[in-house]
Amino acid sequence: MARLGSISSLLLHHATIKKLPRVGYTLTTKKRAAFACVLCPGSERVLQSWDKYTAMNNPDVAVLVGSTSDMYVAEKAIEILEDAGVAYDLEVISAHREPTRLDEYLRKAHAKVYIAIAGISAALPGIIASKTTAPVIGVPVSTKLGGLDALLSIVQMPAGVPVASVGIDGGKNAALFALRILRANSSAKE
Amino acid sequence: MARLGSISSLLLHHATIKKLPRVGYTLTTKKRAAFACVLCPGSERVLQSWDKYTAMNNPDVAVLVGSTSDMYVAEKAIEILEDAGVAYDLEVISAHREPTRLDEYLRKAHAKVYIAIAGISAALPGIIASKTTAPVIGVPVSTKLGGLDALLSIVQMPAGVPVASVGIDGGKNAALFALRILRANSSAKE
Amino acid sequence: MARLGSISSLLLHHATIKKLPRVGYTLTTKKRAAFACVLCPGSERVLQSWDKYTAMNNPDVAVLVGSTSDMYVAEKAIEILEDAGVAYDLEVISAHREPTRLDEYLRKAHAKVYIAIAGISAALPGIIASKTTAPVIGVPVSTKLGGLDALLSIVQMPAGVPVASVGIDGGKNAALFALRILRANSSAKE
Amino acid sequence: MARLGSISSLLLHHATIKKLPRVGYTLTTKKRAAFACVLCPGSERVLQSWDKYTAMNNPDVAVLVGSTSDMYVAEKAIEILEDAGVAYDLEVISAHREPTRLDEYLRKAHAKVYIAIAGISAALPGIIASKTTAPVIGVPVSTKLGGLDALLSIVQMPAGVPVASVGIDGGKNAALFALRILRANSSAKE
Amino acid sequence: MARLGSISSLLLHHATIKKLPRVGYTLTTKKRAAFACVLCPGSERVLQSWDKYTAMNNPDVAVLVGSTSDMYVAEKAIEILEDAGVAYDLEVISAHREPTRLDEYLRKAHAKVYIAIAGISAALPGIIASKTTAPVIGVPVSTKLGGLDALLSIVQMPAGVPVASVGIDGGKNAALFALRILRANSSAKE
Amino acid sequence: MARLGSISSLLLHHATIKKLPRVGYTLTTKKRAAFACVLCPGSERVLQSWDKYTAMNNPDVAVLVGSTSDMYVAEKAIEILEDAGVAYDLEVISAHREPTRLDEYLRKAHAKVYIAIAGISAALPGIIASKTTAPVIGVPVSTKLGGLDALLSIVQMPAGVPVASVGIDGGKNAALFALRILRANSSAKE
Amino acid sequence: MARLGSISSLLLHHATIKKLPRVGYTLTTKKRAAFACVLCPGSERVLQSWDKYTAMNNPDVAVLVGSTSDMYVAEKAIEILEDAGVAYDLEVISAHREPTRLDEYLRKAHAKVYIAIAGISAALPGIIASKTTAPVIGVPVSTKLGGLDALLSIVQMPAGVPVASVGIDGGKNAALFALRILRANSSAKE
Amino acid sequence: MARLGSISSLLLHHATIKKLPRVGYTLTTKKRAAFACVLCPGSERVLQSWDKYTAMNNPDVAVLVGSTSDMYVAEKAIEILEDAGVAYDLEVISAHREPTRLDEYLRKAHAKVYIAIAGISAALPGIIASKTTAPVIGVPVSTKLGGLDALLSIVQMPAGVPVASVGIDGGKNAALFALRILRANSSAKE
Repeated sequence: MARLGSISSLLLHHATIKKLPRVGYTLTTKKRAAFACVLCPGSERVLQSWDKYTAMNNPDVAVLVGSTSDMYVAEKAIEILEDAGVAYDLEVISAHREPTRLDEYLRKAHAKVYIAIAGISAALPGIIASKTTAPVIGVPVSTKLGGLDALLSIVQMPAGVPVASVGIDGGKNAALFALRILRANSSAKE
Repeated sequence: MARLGSISSLLLHHATIKKLPRVGYTLTTKKRAAFACVLCPGSERVLQSWDKYTAMNNPDVAVLVGSTSDMYVAEKAIEILEDAGVAYDLEVISAHREPTRLDEYLRKAHAKVYIAIAGISAALPGIIASKTTAPVIGVPVSTKLGGLDALLSIVQMPAGVPVASVGIDGGKNAALFALRILRANSSAKE
Repeated sequence: MARLGSISSLLLHHATIKKLPRVGYTLTTKKRAAFACVLCPGSERVLQSWDKYTAMNNPDVAVLVGSTSDMYVAEKAIEILEDAGVAYDLEVISAHREPTRLDEYLRKAHAKVYIAIAGISAALPGIIASKTTAPVIGVPVSTKLGGLDALLSIVQMPAGVPVASVGIDGGKNAALFALRILRANSSAKE
Repeated sequence: MARLGSISSLLLHHATIKKLPRVGYTLTTKKRAAFACVLCPGSERVLQSWDKYTAMNNPDVAVLVGSTSDMYVAEKAIEILEDAGVAYDLEVISAHREPTRLDEYLRKAHAKVYIAIAGISAALPGIIASKTTAPVIGVPVSTKLGGLDALLSIVQMPAGVPVASVGIDGGKNAALFALRILRANSSAKE
Repeated sequence: MARLGSISSLLLHHATIKKLPRVGYTLTTKKRAAFACVLCPGSERVLQSWDKYTAMNNPDVAVLVGSTSDMYVAEKAIEILEDAGVAYDLEVISAHREPTRLDEYLRKAHAKVYIAIAGISAALPGIIASKTTAPVIGVPVSTKLGGLDALLSIVQMPAGVPVASVGIDGGKNAALFALRILRANSSAKE
Repeated sequence: MARLGSISSLLLHHATIKKLPRVGYTLTTKKRAAFACVLCPGSERVLQSWDKYTAMNNPDVAVLVGSTSDMYVAEKAIEILEDAGVAYDLEVISAHREPTRLDEYLRKAHAKVYIAIAGISAALPGIIASKTTAPVIGVPVSTKLGGLDALLSIVQMPAGVPVASVGIDGGKNAALFALRILRANSSAKE
Repeated sequence: MARLGSISSLLLHHATIKKLPRVGYTLTTKKRAAFACVLCPGSERVLQSWDKYTAMNNPDVAVLVGSTSDMYVAEKAIEILEDAGVAYDLEVISAHREPTRLDEYLRKAHAKVYIAIAGISAALPGIIASKTTAPVIGVPVSTKLGGLDALLSIVQMPAGVPVASVGIDGGKNAALFALRILRANSSAKE
Repeated sequence: MARLGSISSLLLHHATIKKLPRVGYTLTTKKRAAFACVLCPGSERVLQSWDKYTAMNNPDVAVLVGSTSDMYVAEKAIEILEDAGVAYDLEVISAHREPTRLDEYLRKAHAKVYIAIAGISAALPGIIASKTTAPVIGVPVSTKLGGLDALLSIVQMPAGVPVASVGIDGGKNAALFALRILRANSSAKE
């Protein structure tokens, strides 16, 4: 229910995807069916299934993607998070094209960890880190120059505003790193 | 008067400079005396001189610098702007460390052109471009990797949010480009 | 009419395109029909439509392309300019292969803004900047080395002759930046 | 007491430092006096002060440094951790030159977060990540090629073994990121 | 017989290959039939043929591959070794994902020369060099960034732990270099 | 006499040098005394000595330097040319800052070979090649990014306008290459 | 007749081509028919046609190619040379794999200009320059890393042994540069 | 005695060093006294000491250095070899400037292992590998571009002629790798 706003924003992007057939990412595994429902809506049941896996209010992990064309990297992260049963939220928000919407999102979301996926001049992770106190994991996408531009944009943050980057297109490792963070406090104690 | 807020923020940075003796940029030419007054205050007269050259409300050019350590690049820009008699404003604002202050500044400032000077993961120009409709000239600073990281962070903007970058440490050319913009509409007509 | 010279030069390049089938850029959207007419001539009506959108004498924006193989980047710029109803001129001129023709063009054209699109050793933007007083926006094309060679050739201009570069293959942002320049003087005043 | 083994290993490295006068890092601030004691021993009192700040068994943060020549980066991290009152351990261990000692350390240490600082072919963060389940923050050091070699060695990990890297020589941000991790679970709940 | 353990580990990876259809390397030449048998088992005869060419205990050359996706580089090395009649062993072991298995392998294997093939953050050659006294030849694989990341990860080893790298994807030259090493002591004497 | 124009332009640059004390190149060897006279004039005798070595009309080699700060590279070339007794001309002309003066120079000079020395966005060699039919040797100068920007700007010329580049700061090799060209037609015949 | 040795070496390489179907360069234009005959022999007439265009003894230009896989770059050069009616020789010689054959070739060939085409660690141009006194034009081929490795290998020659490089895959410009050299002495005089 | 030729060639280079005061490497440790004698001759006794450590005929390791300015890297290798009591030979030979002398050296020397140290366009290791059957270890020197040019020149060898490279300026590791080669055949057997 509270998810509807978020879902409709994804549907909006879905329209964009139709205009950009080059994206063409396929949804094949059973696990990602919940996600598929957002892009191919019309089924109440699937939306409920989606709600089961995500939690708009205070998700453990918020996965933000700078562009629909970077979704293929986000999928790798989502698959890991779902396997681990972690409550997550997924949004496609461009730091440069939707700064106001990003600010609003960050004010409401109280995620424990952020995963920010972006290409070229990838400002998304740094901006999230500058406006939250949670750890922000950056994932550079290989849009141009093999991803070197995104990697340097993400990792070379000024002292005082930390972002930690995983490898180029490393959606899976970003999620695995998020899991390590969530278990950090408990793991050492046992 | 209205400048005092802006000046005091610079003075604040001046304190920071004292803590960072590695910056050590010298102010030697007569032209830059107005600027010097801000960093070495105590003289009413100089403050007035400063006000003569700048205009907080609707300056033609707003020069924003991401860090006091990048001021040596800003000085090259300021010298050109003063020679041309252009009303400008100068602020040291970090996009990542002072996002709220940057937002406030951009809401009030109605500059015709922005010059944004920043190193490493240089998000400043892109964020200004995402929140204003004026042209934003980026200047990458050679803090690390010879400035290649800053250049790529500035220039590789996503389609829809334009930033145009001059060369590494190119403060002078940024100001000359701003002058060309200010004269663009009139120049062709004559 | 006055356009004919310009159009015939494009037709000349069209012949070249036939010899270079690797270019193969398709013209699909309705908007670009005016442009298509130049490459597939034979219709008086379309030529008039073209004249409506362009203005050889004192266009607001002059889009210069270094090679027909870079036209796919120019198209992105043209689409934006046409949407905005901006008078523009389009020429394919190589700075290195047609220096005399470039000089002649620059003497006649009194554009308010220049967009110069070029790959590899991209001298076109710099040469325009050295011979005009208008702002010149460079667009590096990813012909070789991912476009890094063109980016550095465009952006690393000597102090005194400013060029501002958008991202690699950033035709759209170049046009959006041109629009910001054209609105720079009026935007702040309102 | 339990610290003595660890301290003596540092003293061992201290001897190495004497042989490498190029390192020459100075310890000036009062805060780092505890650390200084390890390199300039002879005072029981200082050793106690050291024990106050560190905790060999189950420290919150373990800071591992690949070489004594990288200690100038580690100091930036330590200063942040001490300011925050976080229990940390500091060791100089080379992944390539002391693989057995590294294995032994990792078996005993049960840190919640690891900070691994290394230059050139920086294998240290990846090896720690492959042998622990805690989050590992890598810090590339600019020993050669401006630190690009270390950055790529640290960040380009294979899927399955996550390391997250901060910027080149970014010791301070590594510590700040560690603090965000330690506060991750509690911060969102409040 | 003793090979079975090793073969089954390859078969295990073979299952992984099925899940990763992108690998798709073809086995066409007659020479590589022995290798093919491991990935397409079911024939006693072929397994014997395999045993003829390899020698688990004290092979002259141990070829270790970081990932099944790098096997196309290993094949080039194997072909050379088989032509030369050199006893070799082949294992797919990830330094980061299977550190314990790698340690066990290195304790048992007493190869005269190691060839370590790995991409991205290629730690495999360095770790082998740190735990053996035999010469280790690294082969960077062009997984990302054209292989530059793997090349720098392999070649920029700290003083004291030598690895020598051949060119990107240079499986053939790695094997030829191994042959030169095996003949080094005898060749000069004759 | 005819040299005076050329010399005075150098003197003009000499004034610039005074304003840029960072250049500070010293003239020590006896050979370069003729050149020194241009920068430290006042002696009729030295000017005559200069005329002996150079020939404004149809020199064998024309050495063009993009900036006075690149003169240290030009000196290496001049020393070789003087040793070989080759008639040469030396001018400091910026392709971007003095395009008209460069055009005029190229119309008058009928050198057999051009050596063009320039840094950053080094357009000088390419422009000369586009306006002459003589071979043009480019010399990239390490002003920024280790000279990589200048190297790519010089060497990546479009098909049809050839420039051949020697190594970064390779003034000596540029002159040696010019000598090989001058001897090319005769050398093979003998 | 004297060509037969040279042709048979090409035929030898032709065999290699058959084993490397990835080369697959097509010979379409009428001009290159003479060259085609070498790779598809059996016609006395075509061999004569070939002899008409080449001259083993003292050719004006010797085009040396490091590998058959680089022939697509050589073809661009040959087309220009044939159009200009220049006597040239074409050989596929690897500097690293056939050092003795290269030495023999250089002792016999007395070309006025050498064009050396090679990829990766491109030693061919430098070795020719070290053993002849004629100008050597290097052409880096984009085999790996976009050709950056070959460019640096070719252009960064030590002082004393000059090589001048054209752009990556720049076979056409290499030939045009050779033509400029051949005309250098006469062109200025007229 | 047979060494005298070799020593005199070093003395010749010593003269060169005097002309190049920028080299200025100091010889301080006792171990390197034998080497120092070659650069500061005049003592029969020291020459004998030198002969004790080297063996012109069939040395185990031949250390070839491309330029006297690279000797600081060679010294690191020599120190290791002397500590290990390995018979070695040391020569300063430029592959590009002294190709004939290099050929002669390689015909006479029957080293078991070659260490080739060179900067910029580092052809030395590749040429040795093409003319010997012994393993050749390349050491790239950071003369320009941080040593990236030398690294790529050395490591990117064509298939068939293997060179294995250690890290930039890695003289010590080159020697340690040579030791591993020398012990390769015996080490595994025991």
